[in-house]
Amino acid sequence: MTDTSQLAKMAQKLRRLSILATTEAGSGHPTTCMSCAEIMAVLFFEEMRFHPGDPTARNTDAFVLSKGHAAPILWAALSEAGAIAEDPLTLRKSNSPLEGHPTPLSPWVKIASGSLGQGLSAAAGIALGRRFDGIASRVYCLLGDGETAEGSVWEAAQFASHMRLHRLCAIVDVNGLGQSGPTMHGHDVEPYVRKFEAFGWAAAAVDGHSVPELIEAFEKARATEDRPFAIIARTAKGKGVAALEGRDGWHGKPLKKGPELDAALRELGDTEVKIRVEPRTSPVITLKTAILGRGEIVPEYTAGQDVATREAYGTALAKLGRMHPDVVVLDGDTKNSTFSEKFKATKPERFVEAHIAEQNMVGVALGLASDGKVPFASTFAAFLTRAYDQIRMATYSRPGTLVLCGSHSGVSIGEDGSSQMGLEDLAMFRALISSTVLYPSDAVSTERLVAEAATAKGVVYIRTTRPKTRVLYPLSERFPIGGSKTLRSGPNDRATVVAAGITLHEALKAYELLAKEGIPVRIIDAYSIKPIDSDTLQQAAVETRHLVTVEDHSIHGGLGDAVAREVAGIANVEMLGVHRIPRSASPAECMEMQEITATHILAAVKKSISRPRR
Amino acid sequence: MTDTSQLAKMAQKLRRLSILATTEAGSGHPTTCMSCAEIMAVLFFEEMRFHPGDPTARNTDAFVLSKGHAAPILWAALSEAGAIAEDPLTLRKSNSPLEGHPTPLSPWVKIASGSLGQGLSAAAGIALGRRFDGIASRVYCLLGDGETAEGSVWEAAQFASHMRLHRLCAIVDVNGLGQSGPTMHGHDVEPYVRKFEAFGWAAAAVDGHSVPELIEAFEKARATEDRPFAIIARTAKGKGVAALEGRDGWHGKPLKKGPELDAALRELGDTEVKIRVEPRTSPVITLKTAILGRGEIVPEYTAGQDVATREAYGTALAKLGRMHPDVVVLDGDTKNSTFSEKFKATKPERFVEAHIAEQNMVGVALGLASDGKVPFASTFAAFLTRAYDQIRMATYSRPGTLVLCGSHSGVSIGEDGSSQMGLEDLAMFRALISSTVLYPSDAVSTERLVAEAATAKGVVYIRTTRPKTRVLYPLSERFPIGGSKTLRSGPNDRATVVAAGITLHEALKAYELLAKEGIPVRIIDAYSIKPIDSDTLQQAAVETRHLVTVEDHSIHGGLGDAVAREVAGIANVEMLGVHRIPRSASPAECMEMQEITATHILAAVKKSISRPRR
Repeated sequence: MTDTSQLAKMAQKLRRLSILATTEAGSGHPTTCMSCAEIMAVLFFEEMRFHPGDPTARNTDAFVLSKGHAAPILWAALSEAGAIAEDPLTLRKSNSPLEGHPTPLSPWVKIASGSLGQGLSAAAGIALGRRFDGIASRVYCLLGDGETAEGSVWEAAQFASHMRLHRLCAIVDVNGLGQSGPTMHGHDVEPYVRKFEAFGWAAAAVDGHSVPELIEAFEKARATEDRPFAIIARTAKGKGVAALEGRDGWHGKPLKKGPELDAALRELGDTEVKIRVEPRTSPVITLKTAILGRGEIVPEYTAGQDVATREAYGTALAKLGRMHPDVVVLDGDTKNSTFSEKFKATKPERFVEAHIAEQNMVGVALGLASDGKVPFASTFAAFLTRAYDQIRMATYSRPGTLVLCGSHSGVSIGEDGSSQMGLEDLAMFRALISSTVLYPSDAVSTERLVAEAATAKGVVYIRTTRPKTRVLYPLSERFPIGGSKTLRSGPNDRATVVAAGITLHEALKAYELLAKEGIPVRIIDAYSIKPIDSDTLQQAAVETRHLVTVEDHSIHGGLGDAVAREVAGIANVEMLGVHRIPRSASPAECMEMQEITATHILAAVKKSISRPRR
Repeated sequence: MTDTSQLAKMAQKLRRLSILATTEAGSGHPTTCMSCAEIMAVLFFEEMRFHPGDPTARNTDAFVLSKGHAAPILWAALSEAGAIAEDPLTLRKSNSPLEGHPTPLSPWVKIASGSLGQGLSAAAGIALGRRFDGIASRVYCLLGDGETAEGSVWEAAQFASHMRLHRLCAIVDVNGLGQSGPTMHGHDVEPYVRKFEAFGWAAAAVDGHSVPELIEAFEKARATEDRPFAIIARTAKGKGVAALEGRDGWHGKPLKKGPELDAALRELGDTEVKIRVEPRTSPVITLKTAILGRGEIVPEYTAGQDVATREAYGTALAKLGRMHPDVVVLDGDTKNSTFSEKFKATKPERFVEAHIAEQNMVGVALGLASDGKVPFASTFAAFLTRAYDQIRMATYSRPGTLVLCGSHSGVSIGEDGSSQMGLEDLAMFRALISSTVLYPSDAVSTERLVAEAATAKGVVYIRTTRPKTRVLYPLSERFPIGGSKTLRSGPNDRATVVAAGITLHEALKAYELLAKEGIPVRIIDAYSIKPIDSDTLQQAAVETRHLVTVEDHSIHGGLGDAVAREVAGIANVEMLGVHRIPRSASPAECMEMQEITATHILAAVKKSISRPRR
């Protein structure tokens, strides 16, 4: 055990580096770092087992910095531990991996943070993934007090205690000050203790600047073997420098070079200390990206069969689960609607019931993905909107593979009405800077796309439909990401209808209606919404000059927009999509009200081809 | 006081109607209604003061059904109370306002529900709005037990106790069963009591099928004058019919006509009861939509001044606050960044610090809007993604006016990095079926658009920018929603650059660079992203045949998509936008990395005009 005075000195050193780094950068959050300096010193130089030479080791303890704006002290601690070669003073520079908030540009960061209240879910996911593999490592998550106002923290807390993740330890840095004023509880630590206890945790309040108290609390945490443990650490923001300590108005504000900085550094005193972190684990179990075979899911349907894509999703998951031990399936108490229950029936030990808490479900999935698992998480498409911030942040964590599936997309769910209809999901997932968006129309394409998703990189979205749809494709058909299927075409096509999912079936009906009127049209299944098949769309645009898009999704931001941008200047684009607030009615009535049925496609084609090219 | 046996009989009658309505509809959630029948009977026929003839009265008690899938019993109760003329058995039909989940098609519903865990925030907003006006009415919110897994419930709980909303009463219907299996706590009511108490509420556990226990609990709630009160009601899902009671697998499943239905109705016994609800309030204070004058905000700047649009937002709010007593401003602990603190400085009594809990902030704003206030709620644009589900549901509540402002949009925030950059906000708000999306580029347009937003209907989004931008417009300039500004144009324009916000300033620089090369271009400020100015864009497309869009937002789903769809077939569209994962660097470096600066606009224009028309 390291001498506690050495750890206290290390805390001062971390403060010094945090102050210097933010002053050098001209921005950042020094006072946020200063409140947690003893916590970080004790964690990195006494409590945690980790291997400074190997950020990929899994049988070591993991750390998630949920209060991401304290990034400078994370870089300082990693630097002092010999884990990174970069100078922490290169913070926030375009040539440094040490960003303003933690990102995986540094290999020590598996979970990007900076949107508050998200770290604990991801930490729970890591703890769960390791338990799956029988690895007894501990997972530490440092939170700010202000961020515990985020409900997602309590979703994570409930999940962790329900799952008995006793190797998970949360530390709450109660410095009492938010960005723009005091937190709700200020320095009163008791409400935090009561909340964590009410949510099934063990908890202890400590003086967050006392190294011995922190060490003792971590010992208690390790000794608690039936539930997770929360350390509620009373601290002072800006601790160590009187001009900053506990003062409002210093959030996100570096010290000025010159007397202000000099005085602060002087006040920190002697910070000459070096604590060697020994690699304490061998042999090392290294994180590997799961490698799944391709094309091993073979759809089994008969031509003309009616099967909901949501059901095919479940069928495919069950097959995937039998073949690939790293696949984990999560669901938000909708497993009998999304059909993820089919996976549960096959592999109950790798099914995670996340209950009605979509933010935590996505966070746990991210934690699993960051630790080498291939999670598939599902709920109604409408309810994935609940986790948009978590999904956005997940893309910045650059996970190996993280698949989200939204069922019950569109107005075609019918009677349940607007609240249950996923109408913004395509827009939401398309807008992510890094994402893949898939939208199968039948059972065969669904199963193939589930297999594709399992081997894709990053965040992948699969959109499924409630009603049954006809099986359209031969069992051997392949659906590469970025592709499309041209289902009808001829040399005299006068227009092209681009559809996906349920509206593809309407488009095929419209083809027949148009054929009767002597109007040949091309029909394209844009099952890969992002990336979209530009070449095929542009060729169709050049050859037919008129495109009609039709989607059971908001008319803004979905398929129509994805297509129009590819054919700008080449073809007229008539868009059909959900454009008025929907309501309870039968699926057919709902689709009729939104004008996305075959007859409306027919009318749109005729309208478009009657317009002269402008 | 009504005889308790009559109330018990009314509960049975409400069960009967719920069963009949769902069987008639062929879908819906009878068992979810049956668990809360006594709660609903006591609330509507004993506890609540309301005026069955007037859903707009404000000095009466308010009710929010957070567990929205229990809609059939709400319609049944309203029908029995004489508040609605519709037959509850018209549930879920396209010709009935009685939807599958509550929506304002019935005037008794101010808060649409059906996405779980959202009602309590809205109820808190209603309670707060009435306290603002000195109206002592009580607000009741009925939740399911499963939905308390949603973190948003705990955001609302913390907010309500912090704000001492003692007239707010939550009732949790602990029936122990979710959609696809048991809830985490099953029938153990103690964890719920502990949680609410830890979050600062008073709480009492009762037998949710005992009318006297419920009456007593409501009395206790009324007597509690320092904090909100939670009634934790132990119930059985499907209560009253042995075949359904406490049975898993009956969620969202109506009874079949014939012996199954008949036996159930028989088992409910005699349900002949009529309880008259007396209008107990006079004079009635009626909800009126706040009417704000137009154009009363006069910008005060000098030409060439540099002012951040986020600061102009705050300045405009302060002016608005002085003129309009119904304007309420909320912020999620970012008031010193969004500049909503300027409103707080002027009207502290109508400023609401919502702390770091964006979901609750939006829910409270919705509650305020539903009760006649004009809320403006702000945080970083990135963090509004946290509340996407709440925002989506808010549009279905059809509020009078609800303005959301996202600051720090785009990569131009610089060093703080990806987590803090709002890059999906335009896509997210555009995709809503009913929304207005505004994106000012300078201080004058910001102030004018704040005034426009205050008088617009429904959900309005205003996007502001962190860095200072040059004042471009004369103080008298008007910015109607749906309009645009053509800042540069000539008869020989060879291309049009469409920009908004910070990139408009890059477009103006590009204009100068292109002019030097002898390439005249048109410059359009698309400050109204939705609705967008189709006519002006189409005219520009016809006249110049080449459009370049440039935005500090994801290249998918934002300005580029909004423009491309309007000019499909008429003009080439080159899109510039954020297309790679951004990182910490200076604002200028960040914009350069994403290729959205003047030099890239110049290159895009030259590339486009060199391409032959296809």
